[in-house]
Order: sequence, then C-alpha cells, then structure tokens
Amino acid sequence: MSELNGIDTDALENLIESASKDPDKASFTFRAETEWIGGFASETHISDFTQDGTTVESPEFTITGDEPEALLGDRAGPNAVEHLLAAIGSCLSVTYAGHAAAHGIQLNDLSFEFEGDIDLRGFLGLSEDVRVGYDQIRATTHLDADASEDELRELHEEVIATSPVYDNVTNEVTLDFDLQFE
Amino acid sequence: MSELNGIDTDALENLIESASKDPDKASFTFRAETEWIGGFASETHISDFTQDGTTVESPEFTITGDEPEALLGDRAGPNAVEHLLAAIGSCLSVTYAGHAAAHGIQLNDLSFEFEGDIDLRGFLGLSEDVRVGYDQIRATTHLDADASEDELRELHEEVIATSPVYDNVTNEVTLDFDLQFE
Repeated sequence: MSELNGIDTDALENLIESASKDPDKASFTFRAETEWIGGFASETHISDFTQDGTTVESPEFTITGDEPEALLGDRAGPNAVEHLLAAIGSCLSVTYAGHAAAHGIQLNDLSFEFEGDIDLRGFLGLSEDVRVGYDQIRATTHLDADASEDELRELHEEVIATSPVYDNVTNEVTLDFDLQFE
Repeated sequence: MSELNGIDTDALENLIESASKDPDKASFTFRAETEWIGGFASETHISDFTQDGTTVESPEFTITGDEPEALLGDRAGPNAVEHLLAAIGSCLSVTYAGHAAAHGIQLNDLSFEFEGDIDLRGFLGLSEDVRVGYDQIRATTHLDADASEDELRELHEEVIATSPVYDNVTNEVTLDFDLQFE
C-alpha cells in the first residue's frame, strides 16, 4: 500500500472515485447524545453513524463538558466554547492531512493555536448589545511540510475552503429544535 | 449555601451581580492547541484561560479526534463534526442548568439528541454545489422539570438566545488565520 502522512493513498483515491461515481456514498449522518449530569457538567455519547442510509457501528466515546470553578463548575472537563475550538482544530487537522496527501505533499509537523474572546454578559442575560458567542476567533497554523511556501499557501486556502467545521462555524447553519416534555 | 440543579445559587447571583457592575469580569479568552499526530488523528490540548486579562490556571485536558475506518482513520476518537455536536450539546446543557437555576426551576432530567447530515463531496473537493459542512442539524431536547409547559417553553427560548455555541454555530463568526512556516 502507498502511504503519505499516515494515510493509505490508494484507499483515499478509491474513496474519492467512489464518491465521485456514486454521490450517495458521500452522504453521512453523524449523531451525538448529550446528558446533563448535574451542575454545569454533561456527558456526550458518540457512537454509530450512517453512510448512504446504512448504519455503521462504532465503539462509544464519551465527552465530558464542565465549567471551570470561576464559572461555578468543577472543571471535570473543558467547557463548551473550548470544545468548539477543539472541533475546529480537529477538522483543520484532518483536512490538511487529507488534502496534502491527495497533492503528494508530505507534512512533517502541523499544529494550530486558537484563541476566542467572549463577553459572558450575553450568556448571563445581562446585555443584548454583546454577542452571546465568541465575537472573534484567532487561529495560527504552524506548518512544516515538503513543498514551497506558495504551494503551502494554496493548500491552506484549499483546507479553509473544504473544512466542514470551519464552514459550519464561520457561516450560518440551521439547527431545527424539537422540545419534548418527559 | 443554597443549591438548585447542583449549582450554588448564591455564587450564581454573585457572578451575575459582579459582571453587571464590572463588565470586564465577564470578559474571557479561551484557548486550545491542536496537534496533528499522523493520519487523520489529532490531539487538542486545553488548559489555562483568561478572565479580565488575568490568567486562570487549569489542569490540562486532551481531546482526541480521528476519523472512522469508513473515512480512512483508526477511530481513536470521534471526528470533528461529531465533536461539533458535542460542543453544542455541552453548551445547551450548561445554559439550561444555569438559566433554570436563576429562575428557580428544578430540572429532573435533561438530555439532547443531535443529528447532522453532511455530503462529504464538499470535503473531498468533488463538488462546489454541495455545502462543505453540515447542511442542517436536527436537535431534540428531552426535558423533565418542575414547571409548567409554558414556563419551560419560555426557558427553552431563553436558552437558545443565550447559548454561546448555539450562537456561534447558527450565526457567522470571523476566524482570523495566521499561517506560519516552521
């Protein structure tokens, strides 16, 4: 098998060809269940997903969320806005590794730093003039790869244009809610 | 100490009063560092944050991201779009618990289910006509609380209006990028 960036490039080509020929193969539904466990703590369970209408079984992962003591939690885990940064970082990482492999670019080192500013008067319901979420997120990509700076800048632009979480965070997405009383 | 939903309601009142008198106390910067560790796997490290310009120390948490085998990963952790659902769930959970406590409403049980549909032809660079991220996210809230359905519907609307991650996902946010070659 051919490998680049730890990715099986033959399998990557097959995946791209398969999704190109049969778009349904690229149709996924991902799921999560979040359970409030008291105070500001929650557990999110992630397991199976659906590809092309068929359930794909997966081991279960549990993600703990909690606030730090400064925000009246027990800091049993990162809080939600920190998890949001992790989701962005994880997505950019995958997108970089995959697109670099597709272009034959070897990555030596890749990391990201994120910072987000938030005025919690929105969350606390104290002001309607401040944004409820992050007002802005700053990111730095640290990249060491075997390609010219021009090629890497092009790769970076491609990553930004094709990263699902980057898209969902920087642009609007509809969230349809159903409220059920138990 | 008075407690509701596992939250110290005196401390919550103090936090709200303090942020109301001195808005800088509500000014936070959260951080994350994501390291690509090969293939589609990454580790995000979350630790200290800043409140009112002062660093608040925190233990370090590590979040592992990976793709499932169907997407050429080793499924060492949830993938990025699953982490995004976890961030939304964690945020809604915190916002519900806090706002319910502030209104004197006891929550007995609270959980959320999320589903997001995504056409990975966007990620794979195969189509510019499909959305790169989730096209839509569906959420169900399961709520058992000691209040009337009208009060709980009002609480639900308040949660949606004051949840930071809900805001950042459903609305646009600027992500400023710096690319550094190492």
